[in-house]
Amino acid sequence: MRLSQHFGRTLRDAPSDAQMTSHKLIVRAGLARPLAAGIWSLLPLGWRVFRKLEAIIREEMDAIGVEEMLMPVLHPAELWQTSGRWESVDVLMKLQNREGRPFVLAPTCEEVVTDLCRQEVESYKDLPRYVYHIQTKERDELRARGGMIRLREFTMKDAYSMNANTAGLDVFYEAIYQAYLNIFERCGIDIIPVEADTGTMGGSASHEFVMAHDEGEDRFVRCADCGYAANVEAAAFIRRDARNGDPAPLEKVATPDCKTIAELCNFLSIPPEQTLKAVFYTTNDGDLVLAMLRGDLDVNEVKLMSKLGASTLEPATEEQIAAVGAAAGYASPIGIDVRKEGGADGLLVIVDPSLESMSNFVTGANEAGYHVVNANYPRDFEVTRIADIAEPYDGATCEACGGTLHIESATELGHCFKLGTRYSKPFGATYVDENGQEQYVIMGSYGIGLDRLMAAVIEAHHDDYGILWPREVAPYDIHIVAITKDDTLYEVADQLYADLRAAGFDVVYDDRGLSPGVMFNDADLIGVPLRVTVSTRSLEQGGIEIKWRHEKERQILPLEGAVEQIASLLETGQAG
Amino acid sequence: MRLSQHFGRTLRDAPSDAQMTSHKLIVRAGLARPLAAGIWSLLPLGWRVFRKLEAIIREEMDAIGVEEMLMPVLHPAELWQTSGRWESVDVLMKLQNREGRPFVLAPTCEEVVTDLCRQEVESYKDLPRYVYHIQTKERDELRARGGMIRLREFTMKDAYSMNANTAGLDVFYEAIYQAYLNIFERCGIDIIPVEADTGTMGGSASHEFVMAHDEGEDRFVRCADCGYAANVEAAAFIRRDARNGDPAPLEKVATPDCKTIAELCNFLSIPPEQTLKAVFYTTNDGDLVLAMLRGDLDVNEVKLMSKLGASTLEPATEEQIAAVGAAAGYASPIGIDVRKEGGADGLLVIVDPSLESMSNFVTGANEAGYHVVNANYPRDFEVTRIADIAEPYDGATCEACGGTLHIESATELGHCFKLGTRYSKPFGATYVDENGQEQYVIMGSYGIGLDRLMAAVIEAHHDDYGILWPREVAPYDIHIVAITKDDTLYEVADQLYADLRAAGFDVVYDDRGLSPGVMFNDADLIGVPLRVTVSTRSLEQGGIEIKWRHEKERQILPLEGAVEQIASLLETGQAG
Repeated sequence: MRLSQHFGRTLRDAPSDAQMTSHKLIVRAGLARPLAAGIWSLLPLGWRVFRKLEAIIREEMDAIGVEEMLMPVLHPAELWQTSGRWESVDVLMKLQNREGRPFVLAPTCEEVVTDLCRQEVESYKDLPRYVYHIQTKERDELRARGGMIRLREFTMKDAYSMNANTAGLDVFYEAIYQAYLNIFERCGIDIIPVEADTGTMGGSASHEFVMAHDEGEDRFVRCADCGYAANVEAAAFIRRDARNGDPAPLEKVATPDCKTIAELCNFLSIPPEQTLKAVFYTTNDGDLVLAMLRGDLDVNEVKLMSKLGASTLEPATEEQIAAVGAAAGYASPIGIDVRKEGGADGLLVIVDPSLESMSNFVTGANEAGYHVVNANYPRDFEVTRIADIAEPYDGATCEACGGTLHIESATELGHCFKLGTRYSKPFGATYVDENGQEQYVIMGSYGIGLDRLMAAVIEAHHDDYGILWPREVAPYDIHIVAITKDDTLYEVADQLYADLRAAGFDVVYDDRGLSPGVMFNDADLIGVPLRVTVSTRSLEQGGIEIKWRHEKERQILPLEGAVEQIASLLETGQAG
Repeated sequence: MRLSQHFGRTLRDAPSDAQMTSHKLIVRAGLARPLAAGIWSLLPLGWRVFRKLEAIIREEMDAIGVEEMLMPVLHPAELWQTSGRWESVDVLMKLQNREGRPFVLAPTCEEVVTDLCRQEVESYKDLPRYVYHIQTKERDELRARGGMIRLREFTMKDAYSMNANTAGLDVFYEAIYQAYLNIFERCGIDIIPVEADTGTMGGSASHEFVMAHDEGEDRFVRCADCGYAANVEAAAFIRRDARNGDPAPLEKVATPDCKTIAELCNFLSIPPEQTLKAVFYTTNDGDLVLAMLRGDLDVNEVKLMSKLGASTLEPATEEQIAAVGAAAGYASPIGIDVRKEGGADGLLVIVDPSLESMSNFVTGANEAGYHVVNANYPRDFEVTRIADIAEPYDGATCEACGGTLHIESATELGHCFKLGTRYSKPFGATYVDENGQEQYVIMGSYGIGLDRLMAAVIEAHHDDYGILWPREVAPYDIHIVAITKDDTLYEVADQLYADLRAAGFDVVYDDRGLSPGVMFNDADLIGVPLRVTVSTRSLEQGGIEIKWRHEKERQILPLEGAVEQIASLLETGQAG
């Protein structure tokens, strides 16, 4: 492409609202333009990067036998009502057609693929089946963010697996896990697969593929010793022992104005780990929940929602708390009618396993101004369920090896889910097995967002002057700059442009006749791996000047044989 | 792809609601499945056809210097309010985000590209620019139709041109017109470019690319002599002379119960061409319009809307007609306050040029039960404007050559528009010319729907047994069928499958071990150009059996050198 005919210009200044480097460079290099908050047009340069990302993804999906297809953006509401996600997914963009029929814009396609599965799959002979598509997605996010990091409209590759049993799913999961590692490696991203929560997607297991990234909005823990990695919503860690001697008699004490753990600890002169913290929530179903954990820990609400199967949590009001006989700020399960696991009556009390590391602790007396000391479980109260609901913290102990966990910021670039029968059950997607028995299809779901991936590549590959594209995702392989006051020099550059394209390279050619400084700055900004300059000076020095974007050195190649030499340089991977 | 692992099955029966051949075959061959009325999922087989169509389109766009990009599906309402199409386009799917901000789902992208144009183009040096994208479109059609012919969600290639002047637009228009001819030819479609109305798209000229098609819902006229072709909404034709002698004195006659032309002609014993017909409409702006034309002709409402700049027309009520002093069934401009061209007062009277072929005609007296005879224009009344508003008819006379026009049914597959300043004006998309003057960018718009194109290829290429894909759009080049009771024969077929793929061909391999009849029927249904059968019988006969989908003859090739022979057959274009 000749820059003199190219749509989309470079900009000297980044938009004033841009915080992230990728946001600034995407706009400045002319890769994309915002149309609205979280909705962008990809200009031709950005689209070329997309096509490279698509090609990598297609190759890796093809290599493990996943077929490409295309599912629609507009989904009838019934499908999402069948799965229950019409209510539980809060980023759904809902709309009606002219007849008033409700639709949803696809944020993901589990419902559609499961609906297809029940049409196309009848027998065990029709399994396994693996499909993917690269499609526009819409999510009505509360906030768009970071340029192209969190979008409201974006392009996602989503793949789906259909197996006869979990053993088949496990084998495919490993294959696509490796394909994901390949994809990110080819994009030049240092990826970390982390164990993740399944969230509103459902299913039995999931991994996020994250890039460590100071500006990322996700957080994960990593063990420096054994390499265990999980996002904070799924991370396991050891609750160190905080026992306080053998059980002593329970005692009620006056603790005026001690509604917080800090006030309580200060008043009683005890450390937080000798207290049991109480937090009340109401779920989207209107259920009141008492979540409890050791006073030095905090509730991770995503963990809690996942354990409850809830999609939202709100803090409970004092009235709701009082209605079950508890006292806000002085609460505990003591003296409360606690629900049995599987039961329907009484208060749902879910407690972190840190409870089991404690003795003779302090907790609420369910009377304003009073706590109890020397509380012990299960001597003094019941709970509905013990489950991990605690936020991991920097320095926590690794459950796998006893090493130290550290918390890092990250940006999530991919996500794999073992869905199991989460969707095949409500949709009745079954097959007849070898014994003539009807069984549910075992499914999985696997996504990568292309826009965010492009932004992540830039976050990982830039300097003060612009982008440094890894070779496989660069919009072009070679950037020719023609510097001439004498138009005859264009003949040399034109010929080189034609010859390099004929040799199979993607070439951008700056034939705009601007000042060398402007053209070199644009070349650095756009970040094509190899720059080739044709100028009076280079010709005087014996030919054309070549320079890698990631190196300072320049080098002169004779015109004769230049195409072959450039080809050889690019093929041998000197492009960094 | 091995059919044993392929997602999407063939069906013996077509859906009961399918009328069109392409609808039936798309479903039966497993190319696509409906998700809702007018919304389809492309199964892997259909998607492969799409990828071939995309490749052809990309090559032809690239060859004329059009850059690919990607514009969003979700557009802020403001853009469509700026162009005025928020109101005038009735297929818009409108929705709101969580903040209540209104959006539109893209039915086309003139607004977005013009908004980008005003950001990226500043000077004449930034022109011309040509871009396209292949993107999901949404149109809330009154009725989906014909399987994948008229969809509510579909994929469209839409290209846009930005030029400094109309001369530049004209040159590009010719280039893309030729590119469109190439695209349809490569898809095996016998395309007819016809002059078309610009409709709600606006602009100065447009062409539709149609396929003659008995089941098509469009109609166009074509001159058997000179080749002139235009859709019925744009077709010009000669109003043959219907003069009835020199002007005689105007006379009012009683014509009781003659509210229709037929009743009037019968009562007065005159032919319809001696009458001037009157039809009243109200436009979307609430304007009353009197449309008139020779009694043997009919109003083409699209022509009329185009001449009025209206987006809808409704028949006027008797009250509305009476309010301007006219009498329904007995109307004419006689005695009415007629609006002057460019004026605002009086009745808007628009008359077909057939008026100028008449003398001494009969028209309404604006009094119930009375007409006038020997009416003559302009002696007896005024009109606001004379413009072509008549429906062409089979047998009409060609304006270009005097030959005979015939009306044919067709399906529209592409549309090109010279937009001029239709969008650049309201958006303020200007550039500074060589003289420092600000000028509006001159634009054009060019679309092809991929889903409909796929259906059209099937309409044009099928027989009683299934599809016959033209080579360039076939989902696969070669369809291997392995017939064996002895599994060792799979070794031969597997090797052939591997070798043909290694030679660069797209190969589908029926390794399902079903009965020969079932597998051959599926091969005919799916319609891959070349079928290769490996069977005990073929091996006994000396090798593998090959058969073109479009021929009856089968032929045995020795296994030795089979790949080279098949390659040679496919390369020399014997694939029909």
